[in-house]
Amino acid sequence: MKKPGNDEFLHVINEMFSEQIPFNTLLGLSIESMSPGGVTVSFRMRDELMGHRKRRMVHGGVISSVIDVTGGLVAFMGAQERMDETLGAKLERFGRVSTIDLRVDFLRPGTGTAFTAIARTLRTGNKVAVTRTELTNDTGELIAVGTGSYTVS
Amino acid sequence: MKKPGNDEFLHVINEMFSEQIPFNTLLGLSIESMSPGGVTVSFRMRDELMGHRKRRMVHGGVISSVIDVTGGLVAFMGAQERMDETLGAKLERFGRVSTIDLRVDFLRPGTGTAFTAIARTLRTGNKVAVTRTELTNDTGELIAVGTGSYTVS
Amino acid sequence: MKKPGNDEFLHVINEMFSEQIPFNTLLGLSIESMSPGGVTVSFRMRDELMGHRKRRMVHGGVISSVIDVTGGLVAFMGAQERMDETLGAKLERFGRVSTIDLRVDFLRPGTGTAFTAIARTLRTGNKVAVTRTELTNDTGELIAVGTGSYTVS
Amino acid sequence: MKKPGNDEFLHVINEMFSEQIPFNTLLGLSIESMSPGGVTVSFRMRDELMGHRKRRMVHGGVISSVIDVTGGLVAFMGAQERMDETLGAKLERFGRVSTIDLRVDFLRPGTGTAFTAIARTLRTGNKVAVTRTELTNDTGELIAVGTGSYTVS
Repeated sequence: MKKPGNDEFLHVINEMFSEQIPFNTLLGLSIESMSPGGVTVSFRMRDELMGHRKRRMVHGGVISSVIDVTGGLVAFMGAQERMDETLGAKLERFGRVSTIDLRVDFLRPGTGTAFTAIARTLRTGNKVAVTRTELTNDTGELIAVGTGSYTVS
Repeated sequence: MKKPGNDEFLHVINEMFSEQIPFNTLLGLSIESMSPGGVTVSFRMRDELMGHRKRRMVHGGVISSVIDVTGGLVAFMGAQERMDETLGAKLERFGRVSTIDLRVDFLRPGTGTAFTAIARTLRTGNKVAVTRTELTNDTGELIAVGTGSYTVS
Repeated sequence: MKKPGNDEFLHVINEMFSEQIPFNTLLGLSIESMSPGGVTVSFRMRDELMGHRKRRMVHGGVISSVIDVTGGLVAFMGAQERMDETLGAKLERFGRVSTIDLRVDFLRPGTGTAFTAIARTLRTGNKVAVTRTELTNDTGELIAVGTGSYTVS
Repeated sequence: MKKPGNDEFLHVINEMFSEQIPFNTLLGLSIESMSPGGVTVSFRMRDELMGHRKRRMVHGGVISSVIDVTGGLVAFMGAQERMDETLGAKLERFGRVSTIDLRVDFLRPGTGTAFTAIARTLRTGNKVAVTRTELTNDTGELIAVGTGSYTVS
């Protein structure tokens, strides 16, 4: 159920994602899709992101970063949907979402040429959201999973 | 109690830290000190590392990354000390240390011009080490803490 | 694919679960099913397990306990299947499985008359297993989820 | 800085701790001291709390439970101190404190005849508190540490 202005809303969030959050650009993160039901973020492997040059594995910190970012986006999407807010109020809320804590489990070596993180909400409320994110590589292997808690008010 | 060759050992680890792990260089991480009793890693703030341009806060992913890296270093330092190994064997072990899981708690906004992570070992064994890392900014505020489990064999 | 002696094996594990681990009995935990692909453990609510008498909610510690136990069982089931071991060796291994760390996310109030935990393995190896457990109540609500790392060697 | 009525306040919290939370009584938990700066909870080993009868180790679920409880108490103590509330309002708040998530790291075998958990606050706010708890046995060994996030509003 798209509301009027939904496209504009997503467009502005996408802009803020890159321009207001420079580290997302440094990592090369790209929002593939974004709704309260789920958020998908992807990035391409490149040498600078490696944590093990010989084995060509992506750095664990890159994995933690993309899981944190994707989880935060779905936490925001769920929170803003609950509120009858103006676009301006939604964007202000976007700037206030912050991670309380994050756990990442590293399941398989982070090899691949591209990676995709998909986040869903486990719990949402007026103050706190909990999200679950899975990171897979381009051959479909599950590389890491993460759970994050976020303040969303 | 320095063993013969300890300086060489630390020098080589430092080299591998930058050359074999390109993402450490992208973040600008620098090993300040390194012993089985504790490891200190620092980095300087710059625009590319920001997670919030207006409020000039470091990105949560940078925080998770440096906590993961510093914890892994002290896990390695503790493990290699337990073994009577050649330098070559130690360096091979360095390449095999990997994070099982990591939890990061974000305690205060990540503002500051420089940040320091100090990691200590909570539990060490032949197979698994658990470490605790604290990240402070240049005014001494505790920004985040993290706990990580690592395979070290 | 049942091996000869599989029934005996499960019977003995069930006995050890209660007799060697008295706290499982105090909680009233019961193994519903157990295979390398998944383990189900259930318990019934009773006054002694409450964390909030007025709201009749199960105590968070009970939730953490059953998640830890169910995750440990599936970690063991996965590890013992990888090895060509005698029954005696498997039982010794059972006694050596231990939790490295556990994260529990409490998603909804723990109300209900009975609870079921289902655990699956996210990562398994010769030394460490990582498991994911979901706890639901008798009306099918997801009460809590947990992720645990275990030594299995 | 004791306020008038502080003794009464602590007395009532102690009563609620046992009477409103039956599982605390089942575990035998006892509040040793309680202030915004730190909370200490202890319990004695007994057969029913064992997770490994032969090695006489306390069950991991007991460890998680006491860490959760002690962390929740210090989260509450910190939150109620920030507010100028009546005793009635404080007690209502006590009933509303709930765990968002908990991580426990099991560092050493849980042997001993008595255990003490000490919790401190890492972060406190109007909505969320983060706490750190250490569990030691009667010989002073650090058995486990835990970090929990709690809603406190």
